[in-house]
Amino acid sequence: MKVRTDGGIKDLKAVWFDNGKVMMIDQRELPHKVVTIGFDDYIDVAEAIRNMTTRGAPSIGATAAYGMCLASLSGVDLDKASKDIKAARPTANDLFFAVDHMYSLLMNGSDPVTAADGYADMIIDKCKKIGEHGSSLIKDGMKIMTHCNAGALATVDVGTALAPMRKAWADGKRFSVYASETRPRLQGMQLTAWELNQEGIDHAIIPDGASAYYMEKGVDLIITGADRITANGDFANKIGTFDKAIVAKHFGIPFYVAAPISTFDFNTKTGKDIVIEQRSEKEVTEMNGVRIAPVGSPALNPAFDVTPAELVTGFITENGIFKPKDIRKVMNNG
Amino acid sequence: MKVRTDGGIKDLKAVWFDNGKVMMIDQRELPHKVVTIGFDDYIDVAEAIRNMTTRGAPSIGATAAYGMCLASLSGVDLDKASKDIKAARPTANDLFFAVDHMYSLLMNGSDPVTAADGYADMIIDKCKKIGEHGSSLIKDGMKIMTHCNAGALATVDVGTALAPMRKAWADGKRFSVYASETRPRLQGMQLTAWELNQEGIDHAIIPDGASAYYMEKGVDLIITGADRITANGDFANKIGTFDKAIVAKHFGIPFYVAAPISTFDFNTKTGKDIVIEQRSEKEVTEMNGVRIAPVGSPALNPAFDVTPAELVTGFITENGIFKPKDIRKVMNNG
Repeated sequence: MKVRTDGGIKDLKAVWFDNGKVMMIDQRELPHKVVTIGFDDYIDVAEAIRNMTTRGAPSIGATAAYGMCLASLSGVDLDKASKDIKAARPTANDLFFAVDHMYSLLMNGSDPVTAADGYADMIIDKCKKIGEHGSSLIKDGMKIMTHCNAGALATVDVGTALAPMRKAWADGKRFSVYASETRPRLQGMQLTAWELNQEGIDHAIIPDGASAYYMEKGVDLIITGADRITANGDFANKIGTFDKAIVAKHFGIPFYVAAPISTFDFNTKTGKDIVIEQRSEKEVTEMNGVRIAPVGSPALNPAFDVTPAELVTGFITENGIFKPKDIRKVMNNG
Repeated sequence: MKVRTDGGIKDLKAVWFDNGKVMMIDQRELPHKVVTIGFDDYIDVAEAIRNMTTRGAPSIGATAAYGMCLASLSGVDLDKASKDIKAARPTANDLFFAVDHMYSLLMNGSDPVTAADGYADMIIDKCKKIGEHGSSLIKDGMKIMTHCNAGALATVDVGTALAPMRKAWADGKRFSVYASETRPRLQGMQLTAWELNQEGIDHAIIPDGASAYYMEKGVDLIITGADRITANGDFANKIGTFDKAIVAKHFGIPFYVAAPISTFDFNTKTGKDIVIEQRSEKEVTEMNGVRIAPVGSPALNPAFDVTPAELVTGFITENGIFKPKDIRKVMNNG
């Protein structure tokens, strides 16, 4: 992804390996400062996952892979390293998958750096293909809306929902993006708008509640990411996605979900089977550590909602774009 | 309205007259502190309107009426006082109406305090009637959703959207309220939740984007206020209201608008004729004076949206509850 620094525009990834160190953008400092930080001990890499220096399931997976790489290079016991790195975050499936993947390759004698770079490159390659397929939906002059952050920061580079926008812009198409701020954690404001600004893509932040106002004025396309897509085409994504999908249907606006095939969970029948994480009310009632809500008023903070398949126009994957009714074909067009 | 203080529960209004002074709750200090402040010079009352010590169109009107009262008591020229007070805020029609109303009464020899108290009591009386009519919609065990603040703080006392909830709770009905936080200025979190908490009404703050999540789980009734209702039943209200009305229709949830007849504007044909105020982007990009958005990312901040009549179940007024198709009857049932 493009990042504007005092020294000009740099091409950075969310995480990479350089000169014996695992390097990453410190996402806790965004959007105010671009700080890159490097670690040469796998324990520090595990800590960087735990304390959210890096975030987003695919980026966490790649960081974990590089952590295993460091452990291998410094001769640490790989069983111990696997255990330490897996303990960093409780729920991201990519974390466990990446550690196991690296463990297997390293035990079979793969070069550590080549193996970890390969894992990160695989993610980037999927995102680029999502970008190519999805950019076909974008025409000059369109107004596009997105929610939360499904960008390069979360996926090593390129992004999922942002991939079609990056590709279309690079191809010379000109359009504008409404980045919905995404309360309570403001990933739309603080990460998506930051990425779009770095890339020079025309955009504006809107409050989540301004969606209907702008959709009525004219939005041509909505693209979000997904945290999990179930066998019937329902999908879980950041809270507020469901509201936008209903409003989009009211106005007849196409609503697309961009995600790699690894996000499809055919073992789960419908969205009703997804357990929604309820996060701390402090994310709602505090801002920068200062209470903004009345003392005595509780807040509710579901992290995700589930949008039913009937509200989805199509899924943009590395294998092409699929309607919800054709979801089973996702696996067969590789 | 009930206000919990260190000295126990007090019954306070947003603005009142006591011992030669115009008293008001300093709404800039809410929800963190309950500060009451008094003025004996009408110029200071005009300044309190300008700097938003008090806010909400009906409360502004009552404050202006008390300002005229002070001017009269201290022998100030009423033409000068009218001009000074009207200059405090540019758009609230209640401000101009209240000043002209008082000017006329005072020129005809009315007692200043009686006249101003009468103006404030008229507002409260309308709100109480809205509460009586609206509370018939509320049943035990209901889950009710509201947006922004149409409460006692904005209307001297009782409120519009909150009036039915206050009345039903006082009648012993037990229900719970989702107060949507209402970005960017957080009136739902900081004023509505504060009022509900003072009143002891069961409630929780939710992010605006969690509306569909909770409506799917089961919301029985939605009540909001309105800033203007046009001749065809369209209405303008705080940004985010339109999104909720669309989502409510998707789930078949009754959506009511509580407003006094003075909010109905039969001279404006439809909501398309309402000009929407675009406010400073800083309300979105800053929090407590600190920038929270990336430098270089613009934000859009429409203050209101317009919900079409087709999404309204009914209007709760001091004259009863009316369906949008019966809107002309609002005027005839006084």
